[in-house]
Amino acid sequence: MSHSTQNNPEILAKAFGAVLREVRKERGISQEDLGFESGYHRTYVSLLERGIKSPSLQTIFELSRALDIAPSELLARVELTTRRKPK
Amino acid sequence: MSHSTQNNPEILAKAFGAVLREVRKERGISQEDLGFESGYHRTYVSLLERGIKSPSLQTIFELSRALDIAPSELLARVELTTRRKPK
Repeated sequence: MSHSTQNNPEILAKAFGAVLREVRKERGISQEDLGFESGYHRTYVSLLERGIKSPSLQTIFELSRALDIAPSELLARVELTTRRKPK
Repeated sequence: MSHSTQNNPEILAKAFGAVLREVRKERGISQEDLGFESGYHRTYVSLLERGIKSPSLQTIFELSRALDIAPSELLARVELTTRRKPK
């Protein structure tokens, strides 16, 4: 098992952001709704989705709770996203 | 699905730390080895394992790579640990 190509901080933040946006849209909620549910400002949600900010463990759990997805499932989708990208 | 009891920052950091230590010991490596492999100082590994520090997304991925475990699997074990705890 190799995760070496996933550990570029920018690629990782962008992959997380893309998954966050994808799951949020699947839920049919706005950035504002997600912000409200998770206790963050919608601008922070926007920064995360664009991969400009990277989340902490705590943030991953807060967002997951608000999106009704297991944190491990969110990361599993991030892993898939990073594997799809060319090196 | 409810993750609300997992989102206390201290409980979450302690749960992550406990899983990190557990997986590291399963691998039979020292904190120093894990630090070396993941690019962190052994004292930081120790702080994480004791739940004093909480990891970023990037750190979760770096540690997972060093432990040869999927980041999602590491978080799945954290979820199990937090669910085992009383409220």
